[in-house]
Amino acid sequence: MSELSANPQFGIDIRVYFEDTDFGGVVYYANYLKFMERARTEYLRHLGYSQSQLFSEHRLMFVVRSANLSYIAPAVFDDVLNVSVKVGQVRRASVQFEQQCIRNNSNSDDELLVTGNIVIACVNADSFKPCAMPGNLKSVLDS
Amino acid sequence: MSELSANPQFGIDIRVYFEDTDFGGVVYYANYLKFMERARTEYLRHLGYSQSQLFSEHRLMFVVRSANLSYIAPAVFDDVLNVSVKVGQVRRASVQFEQQCIRNNSNSDDELLVTGNIVIACVNADSFKPCAMPGNLKSVLDS
Amino acid sequence: MSELSANPQFGIDIRVYFEDTDFGGVVYYANYLKFMERARTEYLRHLGYSQSQLFSEHRLMFVVRSANLSYIAPAVFDDVLNVSVKVGQVRRASVQFEQQCIRNNSNSDDELLVTGNIVIACVNADSFKPCAMPGNLKSVLDS
Amino acid sequence: MSELSANPQFGIDIRVYFEDTDFGGVVYYANYLKFMERARTEYLRHLGYSQSQLFSEHRLMFVVRSANLSYIAPAVFDDVLNVSVKVGQVRRASVQFEQQCIRNNSNSDDELLVTGNIVIACVNADSFKPCAMPGNLKSVLDS
Repeated sequence: MSELSANPQFGIDIRVYFEDTDFGGVVYYANYLKFMERARTEYLRHLGYSQSQLFSEHRLMFVVRSANLSYIAPAVFDDVLNVSVKVGQVRRASVQFEQQCIRNNSNSDDELLVTGNIVIACVNADSFKPCAMPGNLKSVLDS
Repeated sequence: MSELSANPQFGIDIRVYFEDTDFGGVVYYANYLKFMERARTEYLRHLGYSQSQLFSEHRLMFVVRSANLSYIAPAVFDDVLNVSVKVGQVRRASVQFEQQCIRNNSNSDDELLVTGNIVIACVNADSFKPCAMPGNLKSVLDS
Repeated sequence: MSELSANPQFGIDIRVYFEDTDFGGVVYYANYLKFMERARTEYLRHLGYSQSQLFSEHRLMFVVRSANLSYIAPAVFDDVLNVSVKVGQVRRASVQFEQQCIRNNSNSDDELLVTGNIVIACVNADSFKPCAMPGNLKSVLDS
Repeated sequence: MSELSANPQFGIDIRVYFEDTDFGGVVYYANYLKFMERARTEYLRHLGYSQSQLFSEHRLMFVVRSANLSYIAPAVFDDVLNVSVKVGQVRRASVQFEQQCIRNNSNSDDELLVTGNIVIACVNADSFKPCAMPGNLKSVLDS
């Protein structure tokens, strides 16, 4: 378990592949939810938490309670997006994340494509009932 | 082109298949965006509008501008969901839809699983710039 | 449990939605595996077998052992495909299915788009070890 | 354009995320087609070829003609898979790839999970008709 404090600038780079696009020639909008989840998963790993371990050892899972997405501009095949994670309100059994998908344009300024406000709840993997997060995870996210 | 007025109760039934689930044993949350889009597509077809025709003949596409989703309870493999479409605010180049995913439980009351507030914009398929909807579509949605 | 014999002509109609396409403007090739699985699921249901019941009551699951796909022509957005299921070799713990995705063209002959030869194994849901199919399911498939 | 010769050992590492799993608790089998495509895309990039450039400048696309997949053992959430690309038969307008998904187990030997034999055709992006590959790409793949 990590002693790191939550990094407000955490982000990962995600390449857009064929599978992510739709016939409009751009990234299918539902897929940004996947990109944002990959970033949250890597953020938790960065903090020292493996979701597979939380699942197998504590029967804890994180589920999405709400997702508010704004689509500003589309990403296309072969783009590299930086998907960021910023911790918002932290409660006993839920966390709010502010996320952005940004395209690093080589010849111009970075471009904000999609923003997401995602609320995650910690639940028991069998009952799907809300469950307090591990105390040290809450502390790290709070800090 | 149809003279139908917009049906506030329009909905389609969607079966949950293996492909829709994740290792939590429930429908992967991003997939409700797909279910809601299938319902909107069938709703437009019901009103007499084919998106493939709008695309090939008028170079018009509908893109999602924002999506606000609330996840209340999870659907599981083999469930049949009724996904509804209700028209909200209609503008020159955008429409707001209120959508619900409801499980028709055989032995008990229907159960609201997910709600979505989705804003769709009409854009030119080449430039992705906003574009007025066909006038008769706007009229039908407005009514 | 059904007394029906296996129907060599079983098929379901599947509409192509936005989610199924890629930026080539056609159905993303991996998605035909999903279409074929939907057809197999409905075929089993037609024979009286629910996979969710086999899972919850008998801890049985069907997993794909091999998939051989040939792509002949692409489907596009808004197409309606007929996806067929024909039973091939039946063994104690596995079945081979021959499947086809056919487009019903309104003004011309039906068009074969994709063929699949899929081998399914029956496994224990916990160990993933091969497991004999329920005897009456084997009989129905064999007939 | 690259002077590299084709690398028989090319591979990329792919992390398994929540989105990749199904309710069996393992990677949904259709998704290995996506993993293999990511590896082929990176392999072409490694050889100096960008598919988005081939598309925009030459109207060339690569489409899958056939896919033969064998599923040996399942991957699970949080696994890291090495997905390899080996060039097989090269023709004027098509290439065969032999691909493997291997799990790098920390405490034991590497484990072969899935093998794929994928035939890719080069087509014109508008007509979808077969089209000779760029000569230097064919040479590199052949070598």
